[in-house]
Amino acid sequence: MAYLNENYLKLQTGYLFPEIARRVREFCEKNPDAVKGLIRCGIGDVTELLPRAAVEAMKSAVEELGHRETFRGYGPEQGYEFLRSTIAQKDYRDRKIDIADDEIFVSDGSKCDCGYILDILSDENKVAITDPVYPVYVDTNVMAGHTGPAKKDGSYEGIVYLPCTAENSFVPEPPKEHVDLVYLCFPNNPTGAVASRDQLARWVAYAHEHEALLLFDAAYEAYISEQNIPHSIFEISGARDCAIELRSFSKIGGFTGVRCGFTVMPKTLLARTESGKKLPLHPLWHRRWSTKANSVSYPVQRGAEALYSPEGRKQCRVLIEHYMGNAKILHDACAKAGMKVYGGINAPYIWVKTPKGLTSWEMFDRMLRELNVVITPGSGFGAQGEGYIRISAFNSRENAEGVARRLQTLG
Amino acid sequence: MAYLNENYLKLQTGYLFPEIARRVREFCEKNPDAVKGLIRCGIGDVTELLPRAAVEAMKSAVEELGHRETFRGYGPEQGYEFLRSTIAQKDYRDRKIDIADDEIFVSDGSKCDCGYILDILSDENKVAITDPVYPVYVDTNVMAGHTGPAKKDGSYEGIVYLPCTAENSFVPEPPKEHVDLVYLCFPNNPTGAVASRDQLARWVAYAHEHEALLLFDAAYEAYISEQNIPHSIFEISGARDCAIELRSFSKIGGFTGVRCGFTVMPKTLLARTESGKKLPLHPLWHRRWSTKANSVSYPVQRGAEALYSPEGRKQCRVLIEHYMGNAKILHDACAKAGMKVYGGINAPYIWVKTPKGLTSWEMFDRMLRELNVVITPGSGFGAQGEGYIRISAFNSRENAEGVARRLQTLG
Repeated sequence: MAYLNENYLKLQTGYLFPEIARRVREFCEKNPDAVKGLIRCGIGDVTELLPRAAVEAMKSAVEELGHRETFRGYGPEQGYEFLRSTIAQKDYRDRKIDIADDEIFVSDGSKCDCGYILDILSDENKVAITDPVYPVYVDTNVMAGHTGPAKKDGSYEGIVYLPCTAENSFVPEPPKEHVDLVYLCFPNNPTGAVASRDQLARWVAYAHEHEALLLFDAAYEAYISEQNIPHSIFEISGARDCAIELRSFSKIGGFTGVRCGFTVMPKTLLARTESGKKLPLHPLWHRRWSTKANSVSYPVQRGAEALYSPEGRKQCRVLIEHYMGNAKILHDACAKAGMKVYGGINAPYIWVKTPKGLTSWEMFDRMLRELNVVITPGSGFGAQGEGYIRISAFNSRENAEGVARRLQTLG
Repeated sequence: MAYLNENYLKLQTGYLFPEIARRVREFCEKNPDAVKGLIRCGIGDVTELLPRAAVEAMKSAVEELGHRETFRGYGPEQGYEFLRSTIAQKDYRDRKIDIADDEIFVSDGSKCDCGYILDILSDENKVAITDPVYPVYVDTNVMAGHTGPAKKDGSYEGIVYLPCTAENSFVPEPPKEHVDLVYLCFPNNPTGAVASRDQLARWVAYAHEHEALLLFDAAYEAYISEQNIPHSIFEISGARDCAIELRSFSKIGGFTGVRCGFTVMPKTLLARTESGKKLPLHPLWHRRWSTKANSVSYPVQRGAEALYSPEGRKQCRVLIEHYMGNAKILHDACAKAGMKVYGGINAPYIWVKTPKGLTSWEMFDRMLRELNVVITPGSGFGAQGEGYIRISAFNSRENAEGVARRLQTLG
């Protein structure tokens, strides 16, 4: 009988968001009257319409496929040149960051890239992950067999956890010990924290000293409102030799259902064989895409390209300002309700200390029952998230205001 | 320094199709006059326009995303219910095959699924692969570390190869030895062969006897023209306990650039842990999708659904008949030119013995130089493909006729 991948059996319960969905479904079945008034601020999913520039670009790309003379079949596995060059130019070179077109790899979203990237890395790497953290970083490492079993608090043996606490403003310093691979995400999901230039420079210095690889998730970079906060790890000198960046159109352009993101893989980035030979990762990543995929749907790539047009940019800006308006409303409402609150300035997430020493899931259940509001329990993001909840600003203004009002009634 | 996945270093040269592209590019650069008359029958990529039903469905789905009231963000990670149920009903239950909606997993193409499926299987499995074969089956196993190094003929240590030769009509019998995992593809790429009900029943019997898992790639099932040839492995009694089926909309609906396919994972299918515990694979596959992906673009899923509408079906039928018309023209032209020819009856591929003992690449170069026609060298599909070429019927009628004419001039 075929052997299964036993690493999957180490995974704790369901993946966080399906588990939330399950609890909400159960609540709704038992309380059909509450369903109508339920407000969802759990999963960080966008609610506003797709920018018109993307809609038009996708529709006309679909129409192209409906005519023999403009039909396209398989595209280049790493993404169309029109999109790779647009990204490299507008997100990087226009901002004085040295990234070549063929260092951009188009994907069906950065959640997917988080898993894919492990394809080209060995099982020998010592992995460091911030805590709390986007669960996909941890779970994909568990599935790939890079960890031991789960401990009681939900953490896994073999991973170096980097605590992000109120004391360090949710930005960890590099560890004393050696690690090979570090996951960093700024602006952070779930805490909403950002890393300063100096803080990122210390991570790049650590990576150089330890020859470590930084996986930098910049999915929320467009939400940075403060000056002088880096939008890309490649703004830091030396990062081209030690970092991979993941980006997504999900939160910039409302692409959560459209599916598109990309990885920046510098050609100067090396990794080693067990015998100590140093080789660039770029050809492996290129080969991974050639062999295991046929790139992203053509109309989707045209939609992503359109987000960079002058109209597309304006429409994205409107979306981001909308969500950040919600973030301010939610942030202020939590503070007014007497809760200790973080995030929401450079990120669409509000990170809130639970009142009265409630656990995260207790607070989740209470907000669901008493306020009919769905949030995400902080403990779902890691042991250090216990005692926190995450409120997502991805919602309509009406719903954000509704949550703000209801928060004031929390006993 | 981070360790890289050294299994990638075992891979031979480039993946087949990029290597063909490279040689064609080089030829075109040296022979600019020949570029205009070049006919590509290499990579099996569709050329005809996307069915109108899919175009309209995708455009209206994109438009839905452009309005707040019909906007959709993250979809269910395993695919939308509307598509899963349509597939299960129309491809399976309507044909008296017992497959439940939630046994269908929507993906961005069956090339991708070939790689993804290894995520949930262990490295301990003994893998059998037909030869010649779609290179992705082999290469994804190499990348995952399931093989030893490459041998001189391009095969890999550790894989059990099942020779498909003219003697066995390119349909291998199950081996004498034990294997855990078998890749089968019928109608076959590259040989165009199909397996009869009896032949597949012998494979299912083998799988039961050896508790082996069959990965059945049915990407070309819509091209079967003869009666009594199974379209699905699940037409064979007992297959629900031993098989996974991969399907694609690429060749049925011209979706090579749109990207959509699916896997059928029966809930009754078990695999084992090293300690001998038997567990269903379905929850692992479900978890893989929950954690590592956000399903396929919503408009793409609506496009795939539209292929099942009465108009969509008619339009797909026209496409298939067009390509199979080409297949007949190419098949007959090869025979007329005195070559030994296979396939082309139940599949859009013609499998041709090279004349005069030429190697596959010699014949490739000759057809490129003398006829300005791009084909695929059979040896690119495995050692047993040496001495053959594959001609793809995916082309315009004009081009198919052009190739047929030029073949008669081959000296």
